[in-house]
Amino acid sequence: MVPSEIRALFAMVARPEIVSLAGGAPYVSALPLDAVGQMIGDLVAGKGAEVLQYGSAQGDERLREHICDVMALEGVQASADDIVVTVGAQQALDLITKIFVDPGDVVLAEAPSYVGALGTFAAYQADVVHVPLDEAGLIPTALRETLARLRAAGRRVKFLYTVPTFQNPAGVTLTTARRAQILEICAEYDVLVVEDNPYGLLGFEDDPIRALRADDSERVIYLGSFSKTIASGLRVGWVLAPHAVRAKLVLAAESAILCPSNFSQLAVREYLATQPWREQIKDFRELYRTRRDAMLESLEQLMPDGCTWTRPAGGFFVWLTLPEGLDAKAMAPRAIAERVAYVPGTGFYADGSGHRHMRLSYCFPEPHRIREGVRRLAAVVEQEIRLRDMFGGTAADASTGFQAPGPDII
Amino acid sequence: MVPSEIRALFAMVARPEIVSLAGGAPYVSALPLDAVGQMIGDLVAGKGAEVLQYGSAQGDERLREHICDVMALEGVQASADDIVVTVGAQQALDLITKIFVDPGDVVLAEAPSYVGALGTFAAYQADVVHVPLDEAGLIPTALRETLARLRAAGRRVKFLYTVPTFQNPAGVTLTTARRAQILEICAEYDVLVVEDNPYGLLGFEDDPIRALRADDSERVIYLGSFSKTIASGLRVGWVLAPHAVRAKLVLAAESAILCPSNFSQLAVREYLATQPWREQIKDFRELYRTRRDAMLESLEQLMPDGCTWTRPAGGFFVWLTLPEGLDAKAMAPRAIAERVAYVPGTGFYADGSGHRHMRLSYCFPEPHRIREGVRRLAAVVEQEIRLRDMFGGTAADASTGFQAPGPDII
Repeated sequence: MVPSEIRALFAMVARPEIVSLAGGAPYVSALPLDAVGQMIGDLVAGKGAEVLQYGSAQGDERLREHICDVMALEGVQASADDIVVTVGAQQALDLITKIFVDPGDVVLAEAPSYVGALGTFAAYQADVVHVPLDEAGLIPTALRETLARLRAAGRRVKFLYTVPTFQNPAGVTLTTARRAQILEICAEYDVLVVEDNPYGLLGFEDDPIRALRADDSERVIYLGSFSKTIASGLRVGWVLAPHAVRAKLVLAAESAILCPSNFSQLAVREYLATQPWREQIKDFRELYRTRRDAMLESLEQLMPDGCTWTRPAGGFFVWLTLPEGLDAKAMAPRAIAERVAYVPGTGFYADGSGHRHMRLSYCFPEPHRIREGVRRLAAVVEQEIRLRDMFGGTAADASTGFQAPGPDII
Repeated sequence: MVPSEIRALFAMVARPEIVSLAGGAPYVSALPLDAVGQMIGDLVAGKGAEVLQYGSAQGDERLREHICDVMALEGVQASADDIVVTVGAQQALDLITKIFVDPGDVVLAEAPSYVGALGTFAAYQADVVHVPLDEAGLIPTALRETLARLRAAGRRVKFLYTVPTFQNPAGVTLTTARRAQILEICAEYDVLVVEDNPYGLLGFEDDPIRALRADDSERVIYLGSFSKTIASGLRVGWVLAPHAVRAKLVLAAESAILCPSNFSQLAVREYLATQPWREQIKDFRELYRTRRDAMLESLEQLMPDGCTWTRPAGGFFVWLTLPEGLDAKAMAPRAIAERVAYVPGTGFYADGSGHRHMRLSYCFPEPHRIREGVRRLAAVVEQEIRLRDMFGGTAADASTGFQAPGPDII
């Protein structure tokens, strides 16, 4: 674990004059706060003896039953007994890595991959091997080649970590056809799949996409979270795992935190039992769709030639690639000076690559601020292109890519 | 990490006909639940955008300032910057062990010691070496002998883990004279001290006892918790550590959970800022003192000759020693059959000893239930003594002592 430069950068991003397209914080103010406050106040007053007390290490049973209903929207059939409630999905990642990974073991991850997962893998000294993705998600032929190469080299692959739907940071979604292929390849090479799906219900177009776990209950460990569909400040996530793994997860969780917070868990349970949560998720989808549209339209209008970006069908993020010779990490301080922030792509690779990329988030700022942010960013990129044309390409920042994650760059 | 027999046993303890003297759950129903509910409801309605959002990995700054005020009651001078808020003190223990302990390293712990700490040390493959305590707490000469022996053997001691005040499970408190000696010996051998102090403010007699950390800010890592002074279901604890350690703790926490729950943290912050928390702690002290008195009086009246027990001046627990030839672990199922539960002493030793001991808690049951529980327990012990006298001593259960902790035996 190393201190992070990005951390220092992001301390500045909180300043109100800066448009932050960096953070992954959901727009929780869209919740009906009066109603939620009333519900939670009544819950504490009425059931305080339970809400304020220790619970079980596995998590509240009735909450786990509600979680089954939530996952059913993605085609997942599960028993509440195979779910462990965690402190956000991040803790699930931590526990899974603790259980499965010995130093030097290989973990496969998309290129790019979620920064918080890379941080956890690094903490357990996993050797992260990236597998490329494109607009249709993780590339099956690349996965097969990577597995074959690792097998030939006698390397031990512990699992494939993937965010198949509305990926963080790339904003892409694994197609249905590829889902079947990925599962088939993992079965062939006997590799576990850790499916991280925090954004699954936040699609802008269709019904929820069928989870990988829906088609393979033995090989897929599914991570879920209420951080994006209810509220991130509650820190309630979960892991659905095959029975033998689940038992180990409970023991590991007990050792790490004794038990998750009943206060948070029962707030979620009550919310799911009494509030119109499906309608609220629809509202969130509309809200984020409007913001995605604002971002894509502004990028189309304002970004100079040579930039390309993904077009997410859900979730929070656009992945932008700069013209050749530009370096998003080197450019970040200049962008901050121009009052716009993003996360340089290097944060999302364990191997020091990603310099030409950046993650732009549209989840938190209002649409007019998104447009203003993109306008500022486009001006910075134009200036960089001029500099490149005058003086040659910016030398890629030589520091290694991985930065410890911060909650501000989730 | 191994599955726990105790877990199965304790599934039965939840039955209402059983008097449980086993659990360490605080009596949270003594809180003014209507007022607390109202406060939390207003907090969510009024500050939802902050309460329901991600926070920083180190924890809320204003809460950390309040924590400084709380620790000042025990003579601790601290800066909010050196505090990390954790998911209960259990997570602090986990993070400290992760940072300091490599497999095979020695951790010193009292004999007996807190079961949750032993679980965490085992998870990181620490070699726990016990140092005996008596009615005056950890024995300095025994600590010195142990350190000298380990040094001679070339063993690496990472830290001393101690609950100096109202110890869990023994109920004893380190005397002032011994506190100075313990710190002196640890300085001499250059050993860190992890001071776990969840019960410090729950003394029945005097002002709060001066913490070890109050007299050594460089060598002592202090763990605190609101689980016993406010509510365990919030899962808010903290660690106060020297600056260099604090920085590592923040990175480890970030990797494990991203950030602690703002929902829980801000509930505690608001409670400390607006509610009469000092008076509430006084109420808790009175409540637990009455229960301790009920337990000590009943033990005095009812327990057969040959039993001895500690007389706690605060906290939740009495440590009882059975007459020779009796085995608390072997006896536990028979006690459950007689509708009384306790935690066998073996749970509190990493080395398989503790068979003649048991932990009795008085924190949760009403006084009349405590008396009834002790009555039932005394009858079971009498029966065991009769069996011993007829057939000879019960063979000590050969299984090793340590059991993974459960939230129900905190």
